[in-house]
This record gives sequence, structure tokens and C-alpha cells, in this order.
Amino acid sequence: MPSFDFLILAPAGSIFALTFAAYLAVKILKSDPGNDTMQEIAQAVRVGAKAYLKRQYIGVSIFFAVVFCILLFLALKNYLVIFVPFAFLTGGLFSGLSGFIGMSIATQSSNRTAAAAMKSLNSGLRIAFSSGAVMGLTVVGLGLLDLSIWYYFLNWYYSNNPIPQNIDKIGAITSTMLCFGMGASSQALFARVGGGIFTKAADVGADLVGKVEAGIPEDDPRNPAVIADNVGDNVGDVAGMGADLYESYVGSIVATSALGVAAGLGIKGVTVPMVMAAVGVVASIIGTFFVKSREEASQKVLLAALRKGVFTSSFIVAIISYFLIRFTLGAEHIGVYWSVISGLIAGVLIGIITEYYTSSGFKPTRFIADQSLTGPATVIIGGIAVGMMSTALPVIIVSAAIMASFIFAGGLQHFEIGLYGIAISAVGMLSTLGITLATDAYGPVADNAGGNAEMSHLPPEVRKRTDALDSLGNTTAATGKGFAIGSAALTALALIAAFKDEVVRFGSTMQLDIMKPAVLVGLFIGGMLPFLFCSMTMRAVGRAASKIVVEVRRQFKEIKGLMEGKAKPDYARCVDIATSAAQHEMVLPSLLAITAPIIIGIVLGVEAVGGLLAGSLVTGFVLAVMMANAGGAWDNAKKYIEEGHHGGKGSFAHKAGVVGDTVGDPFKDTSGPSLNILIKLMSMVSIVFASFIIRHTLFK
Amino acid sequence: MPSFDFLILAPAGSIFALTFAAYLAVKILKSDPGNDTMQEIAQAVRVGAKAYLKRQYIGVSIFFAVVFCILLFLALKNYLVIFVPFAFLTGGLFSGLSGFIGMSIATQSSNRTAAAAMKSLNSGLRIAFSSGAVMGLTVVGLGLLDLSIWYYFLNWYYSNNPIPQNIDKIGAITSTMLCFGMGASSQALFARVGGGIFTKAADVGADLVGKVEAGIPEDDPRNPAVIADNVGDNVGDVAGMGADLYESYVGSIVATSALGVAAGLGIKGVTVPMVMAAVGVVASIIGTFFVKSREEASQKVLLAALRKGVFTSSFIVAIISYFLIRFTLGAEHIGVYWSVISGLIAGVLIGIITEYYTSSGFKPTRFIADQSLTGPATVIIGGIAVGMMSTALPVIIVSAAIMASFIFAGGLQHFEIGLYGIAISAVGMLSTLGITLATDAYGPVADNAGGNAEMSHLPPEVRKRTDALDSLGNTTAATGKGFAIGSAALTALALIAAFKDEVVRFGSTMQLDIMKPAVLVGLFIGGMLPFLFCSMTMRAVGRAASKIVVEVRRQFKEIKGLMEGKAKPDYARCVDIATSAAQHEMVLPSLLAITAPIIIGIVLGVEAVGGLLAGSLVTGFVLAVMMANAGGAWDNAKKYIEEGHHGGKGSFAHKAGVVGDTVGDPFKDTSGPSLNILIKLMSMVSIVFASFIIRHTLFK
Repeated sequence: MPSFDFLILAPAGSIFALTFAAYLAVKILKSDPGNDTMQEIAQAVRVGAKAYLKRQYIGVSIFFAVVFCILLFLALKNYLVIFVPFAFLTGGLFSGLSGFIGMSIATQSSNRTAAAAMKSLNSGLRIAFSSGAVMGLTVVGLGLLDLSIWYYFLNWYYSNNPIPQNIDKIGAITSTMLCFGMGASSQALFARVGGGIFTKAADVGADLVGKVEAGIPEDDPRNPAVIADNVGDNVGDVAGMGADLYESYVGSIVATSALGVAAGLGIKGVTVPMVMAAVGVVASIIGTFFVKSREEASQKVLLAALRKGVFTSSFIVAIISYFLIRFTLGAEHIGVYWSVISGLIAGVLIGIITEYYTSSGFKPTRFIADQSLTGPATVIIGGIAVGMMSTALPVIIVSAAIMASFIFAGGLQHFEIGLYGIAISAVGMLSTLGITLATDAYGPVADNAGGNAEMSHLPPEVRKRTDALDSLGNTTAATGKGFAIGSAALTALALIAAFKDEVVRFGSTMQLDIMKPAVLVGLFIGGMLPFLFCSMTMRAVGRAASKIVVEVRRQFKEIKGLMEGKAKPDYARCVDIATSAAQHEMVLPSLLAITAPIIIGIVLGVEAVGGLLAGSLVTGFVLAVMMANAGGAWDNAKKYIEEGHHGGKGSFAHKAGVVGDTVGDPFKDTSGPSLNILIKLMSMVSIVFASFIIRHTLFK
Repeated sequence: MPSFDFLILAPAGSIFALTFAAYLAVKILKSDPGNDTMQEIAQAVRVGAKAYLKRQYIGVSIFFAVVFCILLFLALKNYLVIFVPFAFLTGGLFSGLSGFIGMSIATQSSNRTAAAAMKSLNSGLRIAFSSGAVMGLTVVGLGLLDLSIWYYFLNWYYSNNPIPQNIDKIGAITSTMLCFGMGASSQALFARVGGGIFTKAADVGADLVGKVEAGIPEDDPRNPAVIADNVGDNVGDVAGMGADLYESYVGSIVATSALGVAAGLGIKGVTVPMVMAAVGVVASIIGTFFVKSREEASQKVLLAALRKGVFTSSFIVAIISYFLIRFTLGAEHIGVYWSVISGLIAGVLIGIITEYYTSSGFKPTRFIADQSLTGPATVIIGGIAVGMMSTALPVIIVSAAIMASFIFAGGLQHFEIGLYGIAISAVGMLSTLGITLATDAYGPVADNAGGNAEMSHLPPEVRKRTDALDSLGNTTAATGKGFAIGSAALTALALIAAFKDEVVRFGSTMQLDIMKPAVLVGLFIGGMLPFLFCSMTMRAVGRAASKIVVEVRRQFKEIKGLMEGKAKPDYARCVDIATSAAQHEMVLPSLLAITAPIIIGIVLGVEAVGGLLAGSLVTGFVLAVMMANAGGAWDNAKKYIEEGHHGGKGSFAHKAGVVGDTVGDPFKDTSGPSLNILIKLMSMVSIVFASFIIRHTLFK
């Protein structure tokens, strides 16, 4: 063990992140909130978003209470360590808190970004990006806090109390902490699915009646669903994305720790991922200072500004990790460093590829735009073909990262350390989450700022600036999704490996041989689940959207003077409808994710569960990439047409492009991103219920 | 060994099937060919189809010549038994011959079906169904013939020549025969992909310009692409489907034989699947006599008529198999009988579920039709959601069939015999192929008969009768696709198991543990390949269709008097364009299927190949079901609207429904069905190249 206890850097990093986030938040709140109209609109969005989250948290609380009781019961029956039910609660709490804080600051920032954009492009960028950074740093800060508290508590506890059988102290700590991700995963699933349904129902509803039927522009204040649409950006893209990545972040660290202990690295195996995360915090904060722009910057320059921040952070992590691993694990394990680098590089490459397939600057999206000349059917076929094609390179990159990080870490000589290498590549990818999430969460703020500018009739140059920021946000959102999917795949893989270790620790054997019928059947069912899950969430969006459509039509008909701008629509009613629809619709898909591994485990045993996890990981990953990229490409193909190509706005081609965009909405913002959480949550549930499944399986 | 050599029943069954097929063919050819116009139109389709097949066979011959040389080289270098290159040729030849004969009779039957339909519905049904039966019986007859010839030849050869090391005589026979499927698979892939591209390019091209732009009805003789469209039905749905199922049929029998020998059953392990196939021939022929209908029969009654034939055949196989297994394998292996029954039941259930999801008589298709009220985007989302949802039950059924047939056969006590049980369940499913394929290949004949009746201006009651037959064909086509996918999944699984046995026989180890990075990476890449393959084939359809669009537009513009019916369009030119486009476009996807396992094997070893096959099996199966069912449901939702619902033909809803149908065309007729062959062909390639891969892999 090194003489200096590096681990103390983890809580230090957490406090640093949270302090800096608070500093940024205060700075944002002190900036100009804009005129009365702007504040009023932002207030409406804020109230709607809070109302949504409140409803959501009430529903989720009931779920958490029920699961807490089940876990407590299992703990009392000795299936689980007694701390797991409580850790389940803290994970859920912190994950929810990340989303809540991120969303609170985002809804405070939209009007301020619009106000700043009245001064200059750079001012607008700084506010919007700072808001994203608050979110990013809150996520990593709370994640590290949760992990640190539990680590030190368990370390103290097991130093003064008997350690469970067949395991040493550090093993007891990590295997307990491994179960913590379930709380965060559950919260994340609700946030992603509920938020995703809300945002797309409101968006589709607003567009179908407002843009298509009534012929009023986007973000027009006369549209009753316009506030709900803006609320949706916040609850789906901000709170949902935050909870999702919180979960990947924490999950990758605990899985790596557990695999490190299983590989015989002891406390050092825990220190490396925790401290690397802390290093990432500092690197992310330094990176934020590099994000600035001059006036009249092109899209490319703006993107380069964000990239500069991210690359600087990655570079810092890459340098410091070397010394960290060198001094913690020693020279014989320096290969682990190259595993980290594999993860970092894979993350960057997936981002670049995502951009290629979804940006209108490149061939695939232009191809979809060309297809619009022969109508909506060819747009759809073209988009699905591009989405499917776009899965090839990310799969190859993740595969290469898996192989490379396994071999670099020394997996050919010592299998377990190879798995540790794979897991730590995910930590490497996620270490700079503070800033990568900032570039992502920045998008909805810019989007809302544009909406705010439109609704408060600000001068056109302001809208032009917010449009530039918003359009950049579309690109970062696409790369952010690629990053979220890639990191989720590696994290889920680490979790499956950890699941196997747990099963073995509970005295059961586990040989995931594909030729075994149970494993194979697990693989088949696991491969199908993402399709079923997507089907459920897509239909949920459809049902929720049709409720919004009915309501918007009603308001247009019944509220006198609405179209003339003399009367105000009832925004709250639309928010309310979308909220209750989302809450209602998120139950079934969530239950599917949680119960599937338990049912399969009881019916077919733990090996089938292993197959199930692997099958859903493979299909879920491929399907998520396909849906995210097809959706992004359709969106940008439509924008490309709107810029004046193929006849521009209102042309036959544009109408076909709008159909593609509408189909892409639930693809990229509801079903696709939820798949990340589906695969992680199923792994987490399997880990927590491993001992229960082993003892109660029907088929052994 | 039983005193009576049951095996002799296999060649007997083959001859019986071919004789009966010839009898039916003569009967069809002797029936009334209709008036001159009818004969002339049928002649045009026949000429087009033959021209296509000729071109295709020339292209394929080059491919076969090249691969033959490669295989010969490998055989001379001792990587393969010397017979494999020759067996590769016979497999390809017989598979191609099945498609050719089936298509020849189909193109002779369309005008005769129309002529018969002038008399009565039953006469029309009998001709169309007989044509399908010729196809079905030719496929099984030629399949059994190929297998019998090689079995007896190899048996004679190894009785008089030294047997290879580590293996007994029967092992040498089965492991040689195992390689034979590659020829049939390659031919099938070309037929399915090429035919699928041809048929949809012609269909989409004819519709986009004819129906949408020029506003003339479907099958109108003024449309220059109308003959190409009819040709497409024959080359895609008849020749393609025939080659596909020929391959499943032969593949399942050789894989079962090989697994039977590996399980220690010796010659008896070979006898059971071969003789069961022969029993299926007799059962199928008996079943054909049950297919008849009275006049003015409803859709339900017609369907029941076809079902009666299929169920009777299945019932006969179920009865005789019991005695076959009882007297061949003995009482201790009677569990294998229940494996067969599992396969039979799974086949029937998948058919029923496919019908539920794709027929307008049930909720899912009606739901899609309802979505048309809010436009094309919601139709697309609804169709994809239904398609995804429809994967759940087939996956569960196939999973249950796998588990059941494994356990029934005694896999829990003796693993290898369990695998034999899984393989033989596929043989059970496919044993009645003679008649199930008949109900499927009947569809395009009825479809063409309708086209023939339309173009030759027959009285409306004839068209009404052919429409009834055609509409029935849509249902049987959907169930046929479900059946093809289900049987392909089980066959591919048996082939993977056989691949593993081969690898072990060549002295390599193979442990397909999912946690091994190579297996996992194989799983990932395998899971992605079906998406990439679909993307390629869908884009190919798009490109080919746009060439047809250009040509049809040109003819409408340049040929004077065409729209007035005074001049004739240049049908042959459209056939020619579709042919050369299909030939050109089928190369790349086919190369992907053939090279992927070899490349992965050389780079990452045989275990990665195992992962690759499993991954593509899982994703390919799920994706194929999704695409086939979504396409079928869109098609029938459009037809449902055309029947007068939601505003009927020409309404806003109908236009939205047409978009869904057009998107569904490549889904259900090109990309989806090709996936079956992709997964089987990759398994076959892996088996044939196993020894080469083992010796030349870079990563061991």
C-alpha cells in the first residue's frame, strides 16, 4: 500500500466539484435575468418543470418505498447485507438530486442566456455552458460523495464488526457497494422514460396541431403546448440525461472496484477508479475555462470552443492517470494505464462517428435529405438504413476497446485483471464526465433560450445568436448520446462480470457457455427485450401525444381570441396532461426491466440470467445507436432542407423531411436513450437479487 | 441396427416427391391456358423471369467457379475432404434447380389460374395450389435426392478406402455432408437478395410513377414496369423462398445427422432425420388432397382449406415419427419423439402469432390503420412499434422449443443428445415442408393471376375470385415467413453446435464462455451484422427503384399514345434494368456474409466465430421477425383502409397508409427474409473454413 492514502482524494474531489458548481450557480443567478416578459416565460417553464418533477418524485417515492421494504425483507432473511436497502435509497436520492439541481439551474438559465445573448454571442455561450457545467459537476460531485460516504462508513464498520464468510474486508466493502447502483439505476430509468415520454408527447403534440394544423411557427406563445414543450426539454434532456450518466458514473466505479478486488488488487483496485474520478473533476473544472468564443463565430468555431474544453480535460486525465497507476498499482500493472487510454480514445472516436452520421455537413444526412424528393416513404427507408449502417463502427470501436483494454491490462496471462482492465476503460471514458455532460446539458438551455427569445419578441439578432447556440447543442446532444451509449455498454459489461463474481461467491457455479440451452435461451430473450421495451415506450409516446393533440385542439376551439393573440392559452393544463400521461406510461416498461432478470432467474437459473444480460447488452447497444443516429440524422436532414435545399421550407421535400423528423423524435429522445438504462438496471437487479435467485431457482 | 434398413426410404421418398411433382406439373400444363391475351401476358412475365434467372445464374456461376477453386485448393492442402468442393457444386445446383422449376411452373400457372377462376373459385384454387405444391415437392424431392446420393456414395467410398483420423466411418460421412449446405446457402442468398431487390425495386418503381404520379391503377398494362413487377413476384417470392427453404431443409438434416453421430447414436442418428423427411413427403402429398373449396367461400373458409392440408400432414408425421423413433432409437430415446413434437408445435404457434400481428382481422394492424388518421409519421411509428412488439412471443416460443426439445431428448443427463434433440425439432418443423411451402408459393401465382385477369380485361367476377385467392396468399405469405424464420433459427443453432464439434474434432478447444473477450467481441459484431446487412439491402432497393422510376417516367414521356392505350410500353427494358441493378447490388451484402466469419476467425480465433454466429443468430432472428411483421401489418393496414375504413381509397388516411406500405416493402420482402439466409450461410462458411481458421488464426 502506498504511504499516502490516495483515497482521501475522492471525497476531496467531490467537495471541490460541488463547491465549484455552487460558485457557478451563484454567478448565473447574479446575472441579468432579462425583462419582465422573459422572466415570466422562464417562470412558467420553471413552474411546469418543478410540477412535473414533484409528481415524478412522488410516484418514484412509492416505488422506492416498496422496493426498500422488499430489500429489507431480503436483508433480514440474509439474502443481502443489511446496508443494501439503505444504499438503494441514497443512490436513488442522489441520482434524483442530480437531476433536480441540474434542472433547477437550467430553468433559471434560459432567460439569462437570452438576456446575455442580447450583449454578445460569447456571453450567451458562457451562461448556457455554465449551466451545463453546474449539472455536470453536480452529477460527479454527488456521485463521488455517495461513494465516499459509503466507503468510509463500511470500512469503519467492517473494521469493528465481523466480516462475512469467504471474503476479506475490502471484498465485503466492494461487494456491498456493488449493490448501490440499483437505486441510481431505478431513478434514472424513471427519469429517462418518464422525461422522454413527456418531452416527445409535448413536442409532437405541439407540432402536429400548432405547426401543421394551425400553421403557426414553432415556439409561438399562442400554442398551448409550447410551455410543455420547453418543460420537456428540461425534464427529458437535462434531468433524464443527468440521472442516466450519474448511474453510469457510479456503476462503472463500483464495478471496477469489485473486479479489482476479485483480481487480487485489494484496496489498490478500489483506489485507482475512485481517485481517477477525482482527477477527472479537477480536469473538468480546468477544461471549463477553455470554453469561450468571439463574436460572429461560425458553427465550426463554436464547436471547436467546446471541444477545446473537453480535449484539455481528457489530456489532463491522460497525463495524471499514468502517475496514479504507476504509483498505486506499480510498474507491473502499468498496462492498466493503456486500458484507461483505450476507453478515453473510444469515447472520442464514438463522438466523431456520431457526428459524421448525424450532421448535415456529411454524406449520410444529405442522403436522407435527397430522399425527401421522392416523398416520406423514401425518407423513412433512408433514415433507417443510415441508422442501421451507423451501428457498424461504434460496435467495432467498443469491441476494439474491449480487446485492447483486456490485453493491455494483462488479461492473457491473468484473466481477472483483464476484466479489471475492461472495467477501468469505462471509468477512463467517464472520468471527464463533469465537462462532457456540461457540453450536453448546455443544449436544452440554449434551446429554451431561443424559445424565450421568440416568445418575448426580442430583436432578430438575439434569436440568431441563440439559434447558433441551439444548433451547436444539437450536435453536442448527438455526440453526448453516443458517449452515453458507449460508456453504458462498457459499464454494463463490467457489471455482468461483477455479477458472475457475486454468483460464484454465493457458492453457485456459473459457466456462461453459449451452447448451454439456458444461456442460449437467456441470450435470445435478452436480445428481444430491447425491442419489446422500445415498442412499449414508442407506443406510450404516441398515446400521450394524442392526449396533447386533443387538448390543444380544444383550446384553439374554445378559447376566444387565442389565435389573434388577445387571450392566453392554458399552458398549465398541457403540462399537467403530459405529466400524468408520462407518469402513467412509465410504469410498465420499468416493471419489465426490473422483473425480467428475476423471473428468468427463477425459471431458468443464474446462467440464463447471464445470457439475458449479455443478449440485452448486445441488442440494446446496437439498437440504441441505431435509434439515436437515425433520429439525429432525420432531425438534421429536415433542418438542412429548411436552410433552403430541395425547395426549402414548405416544399414537398420539406413535408417529407418533417415526417422523418417526427418519426425520429421518439427514436432519439425516448426509446433509444432509455435502452442504456435498461441494460444497466437489469444488470444491477441481477446483482442485488443474485443470492435470492440462486436459492429459489426452479431449474438448476 | 434395425434389421430393415430404414434409410432406403430417403431416396424412395425423394423419387416419390419428384414423381408426384411431375404429375401435378403435367396436369397444370394440360389445363386451359386462357385466351390469347392471357397467354401473351403470361408469356411476357415468363420471358422476363427466365431472362432474370439466366442472368442471375451466370453471375452465380462465376461466384461458384471462384469458390470451387478456393475450396479445391483448400482440399488439396488438406484443410477439407476432397468431396467438399464437389458437394458445394451439387448443393448450389440443386438449390438453383428448385428455384428454377418452381418458378417455371409458377409462370405457367398464372394465366391458367385466371382461366380456371373463370369457371369457379375452387378450380382457381386447385391450379394455384398445385403450382405451389410442385414447388414444395420439388424442393424436398431434390433435397432428399442430393442427400441420398452423397450418403450412399460416401458410405461406399469409406467402406473401400481409409477413413480419416479420429473418426469412424459414419462420422466421416456426416462431417463431410455437413459442408454441403454451403452451396445451397450461397445460392439461396443470391436468390433471396437478388430476387428481393428485383421485386421491390420493380414494385416501388411501378407504384411511385404509375399509381402516384400518373394516377393509373395497379397492374394497368400501360405501366411499363407492370411486367417487371409480376416477374419480381416470381423471382423473389417463389425462386427466393424456394432456395431459402431448400437450404433450411438440407441444413437441418445434415446438422442433425452430425450431432446424432457426435451424441454416439451412430447410423441411427442419421436414419431418423432422413427417414422423417421421407415420411414428411408422403404426409405432404396426402395433405394436398385435402385442399379444396366450395364456391363463394369466405376468406376464413379458404384459409381453413389450406390449413386442413397442413394440419393433416403434420398429424401424419406426428403419428409415424413415434414408431420411427421407437423402432430406430429404441425406447430409451423415445424422448427424442417429444423433441420432434416440440418443433412441430412451435412451427404452428409461430404461424398463428404471425397472423395475429399482420392480419387486419386483429388489433395490431387495426391500430396501425387508426394511426393513419394523424398522418404518415404516426403510421410509421405505430408499425415499427407493432413489429417490435411482435418479436416477443416468437422468441419465447423458440426458446421454449429449445429448452423442451433439449430436456425431452435427455440433455440434462447427456448433453450431446440434448443438442440432437434441438436439431431434430427443426427437422420436425420442416418435415412437412412439401405442403407448407405449397401454401406459400401459391401466393405469387394467385397474385399474378389477378394481374393477368386485370391486364386481359376479364369479367369482374374473375378478378373478384383471383382477389380472394390473392388476399389469402398474403396471409399464407406472412405465416410462411414466420415459419421460414423460426426454422432457420433452429437450423442455425444446430449448425453452430455442429461447428463446435468440428472445431473440437480438428484438435482445437472451444469454450464459448460469454465472459471471454473474444467470444464477447464476436457476439457484439455478430449482433451488429444483421443491422449492417439490412442497411445495405434496403439502400440497394432504393437505388434500384430510382432507376426504374427514371425509366418509367421516360417511357411515359417519350412513347406517344401510351397513356391512351394506343402504344405499348417497353416492358423488357424495365425487366432488364431491374435485373442488372439486382445483380449488381447483391454482390456486396453477399460478400459481407461470406467473409465476415473468416475475417473474424483469422483475427480473433474460432471462439470469436462462435460468438459471432450466436450474436447474429439472436439479432438476426429478432430483426427478421420485426421486419417481416411490421411490413405485413403495414401492407394489410393499407388494404384495410382501402376496404373503406377511415375514409377509404384516396383519403388522407389512405395516403398515410401507402407510405407505411412502401416502407414495409423492403422490410418484408428484401431485408427481413434475407436475414434467415445470412445467419445460416455464416454458420455454413464457418463449418467449411473451420480447419483453415484454426490453423491461420492470429490470436490464439
